[in-house]
Amino acid sequence: MMEVLNTVQQMKLWSRNRRQAGKTIGFVPTMGYLHEGHLSLMRQAREQNDFLVTSIFVNPTQFGRNEDLDSYPKAPEADSRKCEECGVDALFMPRNEDMYRPNFQTYVEVEKVSGPLCGASRPGHFRGVATVVLKLFNIVQASSAYFGEKDYQQLQVIKTMARDLDLPVSIVPCSTVRDSDGLAMSSRNSYLSSEERKQAVCLHQALETAEELFRSGEAEPDNYLKAMSDRIGKEPLAEIDYVELVHPQTLQRLANVDALGALAVMAVRIGKTRLIDNKVLGSGFID
Amino acid sequence: MMEVLNTVQQMKLWSRNRRQAGKTIGFVPTMGYLHEGHLSLMRQAREQNDFLVTSIFVNPTQFGRNEDLDSYPKAPEADSRKCEECGVDALFMPRNEDMYRPNFQTYVEVEKVSGPLCGASRPGHFRGVATVVLKLFNIVQASSAYFGEKDYQQLQVIKTMARDLDLPVSIVPCSTVRDSDGLAMSSRNSYLSSEERKQAVCLHQALETAEELFRSGEAEPDNYLKAMSDRIGKEPLAEIDYVELVHPQTLQRLANVDALGALAVMAVRIGKTRLIDNKVLGSGFID
Repeated sequence: MMEVLNTVQQMKLWSRNRRQAGKTIGFVPTMGYLHEGHLSLMRQAREQNDFLVTSIFVNPTQFGRNEDLDSYPKAPEADSRKCEECGVDALFMPRNEDMYRPNFQTYVEVEKVSGPLCGASRPGHFRGVATVVLKLFNIVQASSAYFGEKDYQQLQVIKTMARDLDLPVSIVPCSTVRDSDGLAMSSRNSYLSSEERKQAVCLHQALETAEELFRSGEAEPDNYLKAMSDRIGKEPLAEIDYVELVHPQTLQRLANVDALGALAVMAVRIGKTRLIDNKVLGSGFID
Repeated sequence: MMEVLNTVQQMKLWSRNRRQAGKTIGFVPTMGYLHEGHLSLMRQAREQNDFLVTSIFVNPTQFGRNEDLDSYPKAPEADSRKCEECGVDALFMPRNEDMYRPNFQTYVEVEKVSGPLCGASRPGHFRGVATVVLKLFNIVQASSAYFGEKDYQQLQVIKTMARDLDLPVSIVPCSTVRDSDGLAMSSRNSYLSSEERKQAVCLHQALETAEELFRSGEAEPDNYLKAMSDRIGKEPLAEIDYVELVHPQTLQRLANVDALGALAVMAVRIGKTRLIDNKVLGSGFID
């Protein structure tokens, strides 16, 4: 039977009892509006741990002033049912006022890896992500935490934080789950009109184009960027925020693509909806 | 028998085994050159926990460019003997390269409470303190950590961090230990010449002056500041960095001193040596 916990204090106590009994806790932090991507994280965490905790918390400190905090989609009842079906033992849904008490003033900055890509488009975003994820790790006392590769830079930020701060938690990356036409699952896909949804396939197709170039031995980053941008440019409702070819760990631009590979990564607006996607080309950088 | 652990990995494993067995770990982080103040923290931690861990690590990220990192006093053998006498179970002495690996880039900022006083005199200092203390907490898996009230602002920074980040550790403040003439114990006292050592008593005496004013019902902060500055000004080798009367939790200046009390706090150079001291006036703010 799944327990629903609404306060930090309840969650801490729940976890402390189980950790002190020597049990492992797998943890899947989410912002809710759960889709098949989230469920795949939960299923993996369910298999690999004694207990499974999922959190649903739309974290205000990772949204910018003009972003979609207030309109972020919500479906608490469907989410709860999905969690129960995935074998979640505790669903943690804290309130804002409990996570950010009066006079809250402590933030975690992961400097280099937060800088480019979404960090450049969304100042302060990864500071908010790192801070809330560290709080959640401490509250849930997670032994392993599961993150999707769709949010590739977020994953790198969290891995870097865990390494630098010696966190006693394993960070487990999980493959992106896609719709049948290749669109990466995202809660924000629900914003798309049916015409926008059709055009949104351009992100994945641009990444496929990059993959083909890599297989053909293309070395010049500009040729990748041009091919990807051209594919996206075919869709009238698509507007590029960034398209980049970077080092998969440092996220710095590559001067040259060699056999080790690269990360192709992009953020594209389809109408008013900002979508991200990425693909690791080659396998020379896998750690 | 005290164990000496020199790597992060060893320390983590040592602690994990004991925490999983349900034991508590009391932790005293230090920069070494141990004096009676440190020993009083260890004795208290020894009494209140199953195991006692002390760390000695001169943390480079909390020193400014022109500060005394390279000349910070060291006495590894005497320190080790003192730890053993205080019943330390594990003495953790990590190397710099193990604490700060290549590409280290994650820092904790405790914003408001790090701003005034030493935060203004030593930019970046409390960012370095918060970051290394969080790392040490994670490595040592401390259940309780002991800090001296002599470093009052540091204690507030760490308490605020622990609260904001939901750290699973209790922060235990411990009274300042003083020499017979009132000088607060500090590793930096070893820098003082015998003439400087005599004049250094002015910090404590200025705080006593503030205490007398408080008992007399003085309400005007400027009168406290003047009396304290006058006392320090009598010593030819003393130069004030700051002398302040602030709210004991927020560390913001007070417009008025009422029965709740205040924190009198100062940093004073005696020759080239920067010393700090403080005194809580009244007991209305004790949390």
